[in-house]
Amino acid sequence: MTNIKEDAGRVEWRIRVDEKDGSSDQVLETEPGPANGFCRVFKCLVANKFSMRLLRFLKKAWHLGVDDPRKVFHCLKVGIALSVVSLFYYMRPLYDGVGGTAMWAVMTVVVVFENTVGATISKSLNRAIGTCLAGLLAVGIHYVASKSGNKLEPVIVGGSLFLLASAATFSRFVPAVKKKFDYGTVIFILTFSLVSVSGYRVEKLFDMAKQRLSTIIIGTSLCILTSMLVSPIWAGQELHCLIIKNMEKLATSLECCVAEYFDDGQKTTSAPVQNLQAYKCVLNSKATEESMANFAAWEPAHGSFNFQHPWKQYLKIAAAMRDCAYCIEALNSCISNKTQASKSMKKHLSDICLKVNSSSGSILRELAINLETFKKTSKMDISIEEMNNSVQEVKNYLKSLPGLVLTPTTSETKSSETAIMEPLLTTNTIPLVEVIPLVTFTSLLIEIPTRVEAIVDAVEELANKAKFKPAPDDKPKQNEQNNKTVSEQLNDEKTMKTLQSV
Amino acid sequence: MTNIKEDAGRVEWRIRVDEKDGSSDQVLETEPGPANGFCRVFKCLVANKFSMRLLRFLKKAWHLGVDDPRKVFHCLKVGIALSVVSLFYYMRPLYDGVGGTAMWAVMTVVVVFENTVGATISKSLNRAIGTCLAGLLAVGIHYVASKSGNKLEPVIVGGSLFLLASAATFSRFVPAVKKKFDYGTVIFILTFSLVSVSGYRVEKLFDMAKQRLSTIIIGTSLCILTSMLVSPIWAGQELHCLIIKNMEKLATSLECCVAEYFDDGQKTTSAPVQNLQAYKCVLNSKATEESMANFAAWEPAHGSFNFQHPWKQYLKIAAAMRDCAYCIEALNSCISNKTQASKSMKKHLSDICLKVNSSSGSILRELAINLETFKKTSKMDISIEEMNNSVQEVKNYLKSLPGLVLTPTTSETKSSETAIMEPLLTTNTIPLVEVIPLVTFTSLLIEIPTRVEAIVDAVEELANKAKFKPAPDDKPKQNEQNNKTVSEQLNDEKTMKTLQSV
Repeated sequence: MTNIKEDAGRVEWRIRVDEKDGSSDQVLETEPGPANGFCRVFKCLVANKFSMRLLRFLKKAWHLGVDDPRKVFHCLKVGIALSVVSLFYYMRPLYDGVGGTAMWAVMTVVVVFENTVGATISKSLNRAIGTCLAGLLAVGIHYVASKSGNKLEPVIVGGSLFLLASAATFSRFVPAVKKKFDYGTVIFILTFSLVSVSGYRVEKLFDMAKQRLSTIIIGTSLCILTSMLVSPIWAGQELHCLIIKNMEKLATSLECCVAEYFDDGQKTTSAPVQNLQAYKCVLNSKATEESMANFAAWEPAHGSFNFQHPWKQYLKIAAAMRDCAYCIEALNSCISNKTQASKSMKKHLSDICLKVNSSSGSILRELAINLETFKKTSKMDISIEEMNNSVQEVKNYLKSLPGLVLTPTTSETKSSETAIMEPLLTTNTIPLVEVIPLVTFTSLLIEIPTRVEAIVDAVEELANKAKFKPAPDDKPKQNEQNNKTVSEQLNDEKTMKTLQSV
Repeated sequence: MTNIKEDAGRVEWRIRVDEKDGSSDQVLETEPGPANGFCRVFKCLVANKFSMRLLRFLKKAWHLGVDDPRKVFHCLKVGIALSVVSLFYYMRPLYDGVGGTAMWAVMTVVVVFENTVGATISKSLNRAIGTCLAGLLAVGIHYVASKSGNKLEPVIVGGSLFLLASAATFSRFVPAVKKKFDYGTVIFILTFSLVSVSGYRVEKLFDMAKQRLSTIIIGTSLCILTSMLVSPIWAGQELHCLIIKNMEKLATSLECCVAEYFDDGQKTTSAPVQNLQAYKCVLNSKATEESMANFAAWEPAHGSFNFQHPWKQYLKIAAAMRDCAYCIEALNSCISNKTQASKSMKKHLSDICLKVNSSSGSILRELAINLETFKKTSKMDISIEEMNNSVQEVKNYLKSLPGLVLTPTTSETKSSETAIMEPLLTTNTIPLVEVIPLVTFTSLLIEIPTRVEAIVDAVEELANKAKFKPAPDDKPKQNEQNNKTVSEQLNDEKTMKTLQSV
């Protein structure tokens, strides 16, 4: 990376940086003195490192913006809201209208404006209600204190501050409060302390409260309007899309995993790792889903979502999906063992396992399409029956397999409890140990339909609660045609081959 | 619950509430008029419902406090800090000292004081640095604007506000900024907008900046001192304890799960569900661990933790533990299938599987003790070898099992590819289908030691990075004696019985 050319007492440093780290190619001509030279080079290196980090940061930020331009829009929206609210300072009539406390409006905009509409509304209402409650309470206590004499006044004010701040802080630990009113509680404590303490000095308490409230209302309504009207990002919509995306990822992961296991190495195109590991997104998105569902509950009706859309049901779907993802995780860990399995048996199981898999995968994709179109199909029952039939086929095959042969040993005559099974050493046996990985994989695989059914149930409950409309009969057929899965395609190829060979 | 006695035109309502819901037993004597009576009863019912909800809330809060009294301490600490800072209002010299802007100190305390020391320091530094940077920048831009004429001034001020607010908001989307400097960025935008906008009116900009900074420093240092000196809750300590607790839960869950599977129904005391499901805590604590590790990085040296304790390594341990928990999840789903397994074979596998399990469980417990005592033992290698030996024993047993018998069928003569295995109908065979659940369980079980080893590696890396001391030789022995696991005890009983029968 760093080449040093010595040339008649002068040192020339050439620093070439790889393109992926942010390209920079510069030649530093140094003075003859070595100490001075080293010092400069060191400084340049540090500057270079800093600028490289900055470049990398900017690159990352750029990609973030390109991946989701709505984030850029959000930032512009914040800029617009702040610029509008700062007009209160620039315009004399507005400034005087709120009694010179325009600061609170600016503050509200900065603190309350969030990425999604739900989060903004939640924070706005929390701020407004917290301020109102605390203001009323503080004024009441201040009134009582002012009537009870000079000696008692600071005791009452100080004592109530201590008690209420402690109690409100404690309520933040209660999960139900933490989830919905955490910010409101902070604002309650803040307003209560400011009003009750400053009430000791400021005489015009009601005026102050009125001004603060009006500025907060200006700030919050500006935020809510901007976030709802200028390219809104709805938490509910985001949650809905996240669940659909995760469902598709689950299907992809499942299909790739089983296809990979039964891949006999002849195909050169194995599934990319990111498809195999796609189920990890399902495992890791719990926190996001919960906060989205929480914010979505604050949102008004929008798009296809009514005011009281059953957002909590999405969390149930997500939980069912995670249960399925745990199973895929276990399947995935079998892939590394796949070479051990007996090949002839694997070939045989491959077809029926891929069938189970393709039917589970296509049910997941169908569910995702149903969710996306807000429709419920009557065909789901048929798909589930198909899936269960293919599971039964696997079970029947497993039942049809030969048993383990027991040979009575001498020890059996002594005690029936200690019957020991010994290997029957004939040339026609497959050692059980060769069969185990395959059998494990298969029995994990036939656990998946049970979990897929749990997802179907959860989605159907959502469809009933949210009153999805029944889908027209022809639509699912088209979708089935267009959405052929990896393993379905593999299956089709195999069927074709079998037909040709007959 | 509600009995109505009609007695000569008067209606008497007796409402008895179960004790667990909050006892209340009251008789409401109503006036003769039925409409009036119903109205009163309705009101009382509503009041009763509300008071019951309040009672339930208080009960929950009470239990929360009893379970973790440090939460109550935290609330008192917030109360104390607020009371102290409000002294600035009551005492004339202090109030004048900060130029009447004591409000900012109160605000800082309310907003910055968090449950753990790390969170408080993180927010304090974020607030202080964000304020400084934004203040300097705003003053600089204000200076430039004031030199560029009356027409350009609002354009420069407004434009810089729009651009910087948008850019800072966007930087909050970058994960690295979001994780550590989210609050600082909000404060940056807040201060920048307040200073740059109010700079248009207030002439004494430097005075204002100085006052705000001094009040913020007073507030933050008060918070940091209170949170560090009065019964501190360290995020690092919490993370350390959480990891240890989760490791123990993993061990418990593993032991109970295997013991439950091999329980032949004779024992009346099966493992309680909460022990079986304890591994779910490991799956659900990812978000908590990440935020704790983040806050812990801000904390100074405390207890046995140095300043640069490798907190990130805890996240690696947690990830390895989650991998192990996924496996236990799969094991758990086998329990419902356990009745299908062949009993005679199950009995045989039981001993060696319990051995694998007990050695995995005891390694997890040993790791937990090592973490708790900040020691590293040389005995871990021996334990791992033991565990691997018992895994090998299971593998050998599985290898020793008889194979599946193949009988050449007519179809085999046609093509060697379509060899079909058919059952050998002798009276001495165990159908494979009866063996499958057991084999699946066993092969999932022998996957666990691999994952336990990954946990051991992660803990050892932590021990090396954090320079744990080697444990004295005698200590682990005592611990082993005291910490006999469920399955170890079961094993011991079995060994005793075997010895007695010989």
